[in-house]
Amino acid sequence: MPTPVPPPALPPTIAWRGGADGHLELLDQTRLPHEQHVLEIHSVEQAIDAIVRLCVRGAPAIGVAAGYGLVLGVRNASPGAAAFLDVVRDVAGRLTASRPTAVNLKAAIDRCVVAVAAEPTLERLFREVQAIHAEDVESCQSIGQHGRDLVKAGATVLTHCNTGRLATAGEGTALAVLFAAWRAGVRFRVLANETRPLLQGTRLTALELAAEGIPVEVIVDGAAAGLIARGQVNLVLVGADRIAANGDFANKVGTYGLALACAAHRVPFYVAAPVSTFDLEAASGDAMPLEQRDATEVLTLGGQVLARPGLGARNPAFDITPGRLVRGFITDLGVLEPPFVPVIKTMLSARR
Amino acid sequence: MPTPVPPPALPPTIAWRGGADGHLELLDQTRLPHEQHVLEIHSVEQAIDAIVRLCVRGAPAIGVAAGYGLVLGVRNASPGAAAFLDVVRDVAGRLTASRPTAVNLKAAIDRCVVAVAAEPTLERLFREVQAIHAEDVESCQSIGQHGRDLVKAGATVLTHCNTGRLATAGEGTALAVLFAAWRAGVRFRVLANETRPLLQGTRLTALELAAEGIPVEVIVDGAAAGLIARGQVNLVLVGADRIAANGDFANKVGTYGLALACAAHRVPFYVAAPVSTFDLEAASGDAMPLEQRDATEVLTLGGQVLARPGLGARNPAFDITPGRLVRGFITDLGVLEPPFVPVIKTMLSARR
Repeated sequence: MPTPVPPPALPPTIAWRGGADGHLELLDQTRLPHEQHVLEIHSVEQAIDAIVRLCVRGAPAIGVAAGYGLVLGVRNASPGAAAFLDVVRDVAGRLTASRPTAVNLKAAIDRCVVAVAAEPTLERLFREVQAIHAEDVESCQSIGQHGRDLVKAGATVLTHCNTGRLATAGEGTALAVLFAAWRAGVRFRVLANETRPLLQGTRLTALELAAEGIPVEVIVDGAAAGLIARGQVNLVLVGADRIAANGDFANKVGTYGLALACAAHRVPFYVAAPVSTFDLEAASGDAMPLEQRDATEVLTLGGQVLARPGLGARNPAFDITPGRLVRGFITDLGVLEPPFVPVIKTMLSARR
Repeated sequence: MPTPVPPPALPPTIAWRGGADGHLELLDQTRLPHEQHVLEIHSVEQAIDAIVRLCVRGAPAIGVAAGYGLVLGVRNASPGAAAFLDVVRDVAGRLTASRPTAVNLKAAIDRCVVAVAAEPTLERLFREVQAIHAEDVESCQSIGQHGRDLVKAGATVLTHCNTGRLATAGEGTALAVLFAAWRAGVRFRVLANETRPLLQGTRLTALELAAEGIPVEVIVDGAAAGLIARGQVNLVLVGADRIAANGDFANKVGTYGLALACAAHRVPFYVAAPVSTFDLEAASGDAMPLEQRDATEVLTLGGQVLARPGLGARNPAFDITPGRLVRGFITDLGVLEPPFVPVIKTMLSARR
């Protein structure tokens, strides 16, 4: 397996510069791996644009980015608590609508709205967003610690999309598990699904693993099932954008097919996600909104046109994997194993 | 669903110009859909290069192209039957090694070798290749007729890779079924897996279906399982590169995952292929050689570099789908249904 050239250190995925009157900085992930370009975000419109264009992506990361977007969108509200709360609710609605599937965005915004309802000031809002940011960093670390023993020496681990530092404010979710295992001295290798249409596996995951010195090879998404069938994969680790009360979960399109292949060949299939990704309001995957994105993402690549003009494409950004295909959820509060309905309920009640 | 702009008529996928001293013309499929460039092939070296680079691809098409390659490679052999047969065997070996998985190539070459063993002349060889070419055209038509009733009005049919005029010397295998149904007045729509790494779905299948006026949309390969789960696909039709005695078959990487999704949701999964694709020497899929192609195909696209330098990729070109996931094989001799072991054996014996 070739060892990639270690990439230069990346700027932070998300950073806030200054106090409540400061600005947001986002590493523009659409330009990776070729360019490290940091976007300076001074308005909620710029924040929404960056979220919609996937300059920042990954369920936990867009939760934090949206929180800062709310700060940017409300800090010039007219004086007075009522006017402030009106603007908060309006901007919150726009941010929540920017990407519908990942629940972390809605959860972060809802949490901010509750906080300012009790204390309607910009300072209170800013403190809440900073808390969300700090908790995400911590929860990544906890996920890594709880999951690392699942990665065995000599294993080949397959992963989908990007679930690392570029998907969170911290070390990642599924990749945090790999980083923690690697630092504990476990030696393994990774197969990264390239993850069409936007190639988060090739562009982002491979970059992050190489930076850590973890051997990685990319495969096309269609190759995973055949490699799993031939015994070439020992563990599959993915992230999640929303997890229902019964363990059904939404994640980057392509995840469900992976889970089916793991079930057919008894390869352990684990999902790493912070508790903020669980959504008890969704009883099952049927209740989850699935974002449809523009056909252009499928029909072009880096500006290069792949198809003849006029061809159509369907571009669901997510799919739903039933909880019965999941061996366990690696969360910041520990690893959850079936039966998921009572286990998830108990975990979330304990947290409140 | 948008109706694509109908493409201009394509030149033939494979054509031979003149007699045994003529030359081969291949439509360069690596340049589609943007350019229609016809390669003039005057030597076996050029033929092998075109096969290896996938200028011509599709199991039946490479069988025919390899046959003509054999003509080009042996026609300047020294006089005398023994010298002629020596050259035939040498060139046959080089052609057979050019792509290992599709059995049609080996079957065509083996058939030519048997023919000239009995009558060691260029004329005999050329007649045999012309017969293989003509039979492929006919077998495509028969596949279309045998399979067309499987396509129901209003259905959404999902297909993988390219299995049409560009994959055969005739109308195709799986796409011949769609063409025959469409011409019989059945109205349906098609979802085409884009088929990474080389995008035969986006570049070739969409082009062929649009030329026929059949509504088509492209999806990324990872999206198929989720769409099947949501009831948005009524029939999956694929081709095959080699079918074992028990119905296991090799086909373009990504096929196995599709078959698993169909099995999980009881969507009929059919394989269309001529009898020449069956290989009784392979008792099961375990016995089949699976071509590994260059990592560059995964890490670049149309010359565009997708990854950082030094990153590795694994690039299996095919996977194996077990026969138990196949609802039926649509062949030129009829539709085969399970149990496949006796049914396949009977069909192939009847043919001999």
